[in-house]
Amino acid sequence: MTRRTASPRRPRDSVPELVRALLRGEKRAAGKVISLIEDDEAEAVEAVARIFPHTGRAHVVGFTGPPGAGKSSLINRLVRTFRAKDKKVGVVAVDPTSPYSGGAVLGDRIRMADTGVDPGVFIRSMATRGHAGGLALATFDAVRVLDALGMDVVFVETVGAGQSEVEIATRAHTTVVVEMPLTGDVVQTMKAGILEIGDVYVVNKVDLGNDDVLVANLKFQLEARDGWTPPIVRTIATDGRGIDELADALMRHAEFLDRTGLRRNREVARARLEILENAQRSLARRVEDTSRLGAAFDQLAQDVADRRIDPHAAAVKLLKPPRKAR
Amino acid sequence: MTRRTASPRRPRDSVPELVRALLRGEKRAAGKVISLIEDDEAEAVEAVARIFPHTGRAHVVGFTGPPGAGKSSLINRLVRTFRAKDKKVGVVAVDPTSPYSGGAVLGDRIRMADTGVDPGVFIRSMATRGHAGGLALATFDAVRVLDALGMDVVFVETVGAGQSEVEIATRAHTTVVVEMPLTGDVVQTMKAGILEIGDVYVVNKVDLGNDDVLVANLKFQLEARDGWTPPIVRTIATDGRGIDELADALMRHAEFLDRTGLRRNREVARARLEILENAQRSLARRVEDTSRLGAAFDQLAQDVADRRIDPHAAAVKLLKPPRKAR
Repeated sequence: MTRRTASPRRPRDSVPELVRALLRGEKRAAGKVISLIEDDEAEAVEAVARIFPHTGRAHVVGFTGPPGAGKSSLINRLVRTFRAKDKKVGVVAVDPTSPYSGGAVLGDRIRMADTGVDPGVFIRSMATRGHAGGLALATFDAVRVLDALGMDVVFVETVGAGQSEVEIATRAHTTVVVEMPLTGDVVQTMKAGILEIGDVYVVNKVDLGNDDVLVANLKFQLEARDGWTPPIVRTIATDGRGIDELADALMRHAEFLDRTGLRRNREVARARLEILENAQRSLARRVEDTSRLGAAFDQLAQDVADRRIDPHAAAVKLLKPPRKAR
Repeated sequence: MTRRTASPRRPRDSVPELVRALLRGEKRAAGKVISLIEDDEAEAVEAVARIFPHTGRAHVVGFTGPPGAGKSSLINRLVRTFRAKDKKVGVVAVDPTSPYSGGAVLGDRIRMADTGVDPGVFIRSMATRGHAGGLALATFDAVRVLDALGMDVVFVETVGAGQSEVEIATRAHTTVVVEMPLTGDVVQTMKAGILEIGDVYVVNKVDLGNDDVLVANLKFQLEARDGWTPPIVRTIATDGRGIDELADALMRHAEFLDRTGLRRNREVARARLEILENAQRSLARRVEDTSRLGAAFDQLAQDVADRRIDPHAAAVKLLKPPRKAR
């Protein structure tokens, strides 16, 4: 509060200023940089380029699982546990604008807000804009901001819908899959691919009962990969049961990645993805840039509409660099 | 049956052969070309380029709406109605591999199969592979195949999940939004954006009752765009009620698009999208092409992982054309 009133309101901080403040550990600056990223501002590219050399320290942990499995509550508990170990903790929560509700799950965000006054905690909810690929890119740029801010651990929460789990798995250092036991007369099947992506499995809400079946099922199906057998942790996020064990599993996995060199492998895999995505987005921007390429692209689109050139051949033309970049 | 046993089995038809057979109206060739597209074979690019000049005749109608609204049954009925008017009809159904079931809704496909022996009908179910953007591209390349095959109308059925509605709306000539009345004590809300994309609205399963509320709600909210007020058609797909009216609405919209020049506008908008997507996929292929660009790209990814270059700057390097392209 004091800081907010003390700092004079400027219409816009310069990117170098913001980045300097961010690297000093100022949460306000981190928030502003993430907003630039979220809004896909041109300055975001500059900001990410400037903070990039200062990243690579944080342990990035992705959480995935069906809505209602308790991911937010688990993360909330873990934040406190890691704070108690004097680790700085960042959280990036992705709220896909639900096609049905058209908005974020506010309850989850509010529940997390009680850790917001601690200077060692930074929680940010990202809004989805446009394409899913863009969101993944923006989310992990936000993770970089928290990394550069000095957070030791960054939790990324996504809703397990379709492709996002796989995206987390290829981008986080550690992927946590959260499941909950189903009760009643139902057969609990694992979502396709879910057994391949987790480094740690959580069976939350074990107070519901029926967890033995789910745990046995997971144990039976999970296999060691690269020398790591994913642990299965039973939790009750609402009363804290199993949270210490989960925190321990996360730290053991971080050590494992460092010891085996797999952390670097994951960084390289993520880099491959991100370079490609950045290039694809640059293309999209080139197309939208009406001042420079716009008219030529419009002509190309008309030629395709008139069947004078097919879309693939037109794409080859588009991929030629714009004239100014001789 | 006769044709299948008569034609000798070759291990692989050449693309020019396939395209010639397709342009003669051979369904077998159309099926093979769509398989190439579906499997993302290199030959698909050549095939689409060859058929492209022969496309642009068919009226492409996209169907979207929640699972269970009866899209397949409606399309099945419409196929018969248009056949009775001596129109050739193609159907491309997109089965997103459900993250929960991991497969296609076979029932729907089987229900449609009874029109499969008619030479004026071609029905194809596309499997999703990889990215959603890739699927949209593949789907509309399949539509082109049916267009070149000589179909007068092509129906595209997708499951209304997230982005796919918008993709249909930007690619089909006519977009049909299918809804069904909800019964019981629920408030029926329209999915965000659904009011902007439809050219024709169908309230199916009106035998359930409660349709007056939904129709009134739609009427109240729908607005004319570009001089077209989307009609709302009540149907019972299972007994054929309202199908003639729906077919009539589709034909009126096709005439409207031709009369106003909006058909060409839609073609140009689709071309813009497709050129960009094709370019983005070319980039992805360039990255995967280990023989040529692979090693250089690996080095780039390692440089990013080691923070020697940021992902955006690396993307700029990637966007430079490969050396062989003079």
